[in-house]
Amino acid sequence: MGAKNVCLMTDKNLSQLPPVQMVMDSLVKNGINFKVYDNVRVEPTDRSFMEAIEFVKRGAFDAYVAVGGGSTMDTCKAANLYASSPHSDFLDYVNAPIGKGKPVSVPLKPLIAVPTTSGTGSETTGVAIFDYEHLKVKTGIASRAIKPTLGLIDPMHTLHMPDQVVANSGFDVLCHALESYTALPYHMRSPCPSNPITRPAYQGSNPISDIWAVHALRIVAKYLKRAVRNPDDLEARSNMHLASAFAGIGFGNAGVHLCHGMSYPISGLVKTYKAKDYNVDHPLVPHGLSVVLTSPAVFTFTAQMSPERHLETAEILGADTRTARIPDAGPILADTLRKFLFDLDVDDGLAAIGYSRADIPALVKGTLPQERVTKLAPRPQSEEDLSDLFEASMKLY
Amino acid sequence: MGAKNVCLMTDKNLSQLPPVQMVMDSLVKNGINFKVYDNVRVEPTDRSFMEAIEFVKRGAFDAYVAVGGGSTMDTCKAANLYASSPHSDFLDYVNAPIGKGKPVSVPLKPLIAVPTTSGTGSETTGVAIFDYEHLKVKTGIASRAIKPTLGLIDPMHTLHMPDQVVANSGFDVLCHALESYTALPYHMRSPCPSNPITRPAYQGSNPISDIWAVHALRIVAKYLKRAVRNPDDLEARSNMHLASAFAGIGFGNAGVHLCHGMSYPISGLVKTYKAKDYNVDHPLVPHGLSVVLTSPAVFTFTAQMSPERHLETAEILGADTRTARIPDAGPILADTLRKFLFDLDVDDGLAAIGYSRADIPALVKGTLPQERVTKLAPRPQSEEDLSDLFEASMKLY
Repeated sequence: MGAKNVCLMTDKNLSQLPPVQMVMDSLVKNGINFKVYDNVRVEPTDRSFMEAIEFVKRGAFDAYVAVGGGSTMDTCKAANLYASSPHSDFLDYVNAPIGKGKPVSVPLKPLIAVPTTSGTGSETTGVAIFDYEHLKVKTGIASRAIKPTLGLIDPMHTLHMPDQVVANSGFDVLCHALESYTALPYHMRSPCPSNPITRPAYQGSNPISDIWAVHALRIVAKYLKRAVRNPDDLEARSNMHLASAFAGIGFGNAGVHLCHGMSYPISGLVKTYKAKDYNVDHPLVPHGLSVVLTSPAVFTFTAQMSPERHLETAEILGADTRTARIPDAGPILADTLRKFLFDLDVDDGLAAIGYSRADIPALVKGTLPQERVTKLAPRPQSEEDLSDLFEASMKLY
Repeated sequence: MGAKNVCLMTDKNLSQLPPVQMVMDSLVKNGINFKVYDNVRVEPTDRSFMEAIEFVKRGAFDAYVAVGGGSTMDTCKAANLYASSPHSDFLDYVNAPIGKGKPVSVPLKPLIAVPTTSGTGSETTGVAIFDYEHLKVKTGIASRAIKPTLGLIDPMHTLHMPDQVVANSGFDVLCHALESYTALPYHMRSPCPSNPITRPAYQGSNPISDIWAVHALRIVAKYLKRAVRNPDDLEARSNMHLASAFAGIGFGNAGVHLCHGMSYPISGLVKTYKAKDYNVDHPLVPHGLSVVLTSPAVFTFTAQMSPERHLETAEILGADTRTARIPDAGPILADTLRKFLFDLDVDDGLAAIGYSRADIPALVKGTLPQERVTKLAPRPQSEEDLSDLFEASMKLY
């Protein structure tokens, strides 16, 4: 790539760990100048994005290496974008309706993404997600232009992950696969954009993304529990690391829908919950947890639009569907998911992470601006539907 | 793409058919100048490539549209390459040891590939194959740089295909899938190239290509016979058209091995055989047929290197493998393939297309230069092994 001045982006925890050391050694060995930015926030915000952007604008870098989870890769994508488009206002590229959703036409610098968690698939996608603090909701930037140039998917980097991080990031893979496989089919999305450059990054489910979704789901079914329970199970952790990238290729192309759309206020409105195994100084609902807690309710709601696909995924996750009836597809998948989560000691619904019925209006309000993904749900939702879905997710077992 | 002067490349048969008419109508409607080159040879040669190259050099085109099968797409790739590198000698980019195998560093023009057969997957690959007349062998050009910019995989274009063209092109998909899935694993390929630019286009089997190979094979197992037998079965022909692209993504990345390596002299040394349904003025063994006739022998030979994969593919193709023993993997897959070919009335081996034992030394000699692919076989082959494989392929049933 001819890089001479590299920005190595990571977070404070990882900056002390072998994956970052390995990259620094390689840069030193190859005589390439670099600066480290290790101030990435886990579950980043517009403010933390902007700090990173200011740093890289001053550095005049010609390439980026992001070492970390989705938070780090997403921060690095945003930094690369705004450093390459220095006169843009921050909201210019942020998804509408919160931002202006402008298409990206400036050339970006090469970005090498080195994932150290197995969930986000961010190394394969053109999406960067953050908390917009002013509105207390998650939103993001979505453009093919910010997709990393290269992803280095090295399973050795996953061996340091605590078990809850493995579980929660694995739930993200699970939902990427389930949501992209059940998303509105690409030929039913409307209106048709007037020009290819205004096509959204998320196209709806299609024959290419389906392959990745189903394959990733098979790996989750086979390996996620093993990867959580035994940090030395290299086979399981390697496969989950690939599954994260595979599901990323699928959903990065097809999109996700309600679990993700509803997850953004669930993490954005967090009160005091602090997840075990996450070394952060602020309340935090990990992304994968915020996504998976609504999954039984969501797939009960969407099953009528593609019951065969819902049954097929239930079967992959271990359900015996030989005598299943089509109208039961939703409850069968929901029960399969509940059992899967119970086996992994997941918190018993939104109530267990600090929400009550009184929070539902705010959770619904935080979901409404997530049109980019909620519009990809196979079934349209009213505010009442969303309210029912949050209520059904208060308790799982 | 900003194109103002387009080369539309096709063959004489297709130039009278709807897929070409549709492209011309679109170019006219959009006010884009274009010239048609319809002199593509089915199973192209160095001479036919050179004619196309001379044509496009004179035309100073800024974009290409190739409408046809592998022959047309491959000719267009070569034309685009040499027009973009006008001072290169033809052999510069041809695979070693026949050519010099130089890496491509010039920028090419955009190429839109519109496949009208369902086999080659050429719309997804950086490979262009031709008969080198002087040596009577097939060889090619392989570089990521010649991969089409865009493939338009429209199943309506497959409805005009005669049944033998559907069958033979489907066999190409079958062998792309089987060979790439059983190819030497990427981490066992050696020696390691000194620089990424000299990495071959074919990397060996890997977790990404495996997904495409297995998925394409499942589609072949389900739809090929239907697509051959009923030209109006749009579901079957649509799925085979996708399978062709899917297998292309797989083998374009992993590579193929012995069926393809041995097929080049089988078609290059053709005597008088003229395949039914091919409207050409010269003897011709269609590529897919030349590939599939050796498949029972080849997979019997390779099975010991990955018997589980050989059994898995036999099962996908319909074999009952519940009580199968590992050492029988090769014969089981071979028998499954024989039954599959017999059901589709395929010629009974190399003898049925005009070869005898006396031709075997020449067939072996024509295979030896195909190192680019034969080296990807999971098991190394001596000249005697190749001779045995040709002999075992003389008669199938």
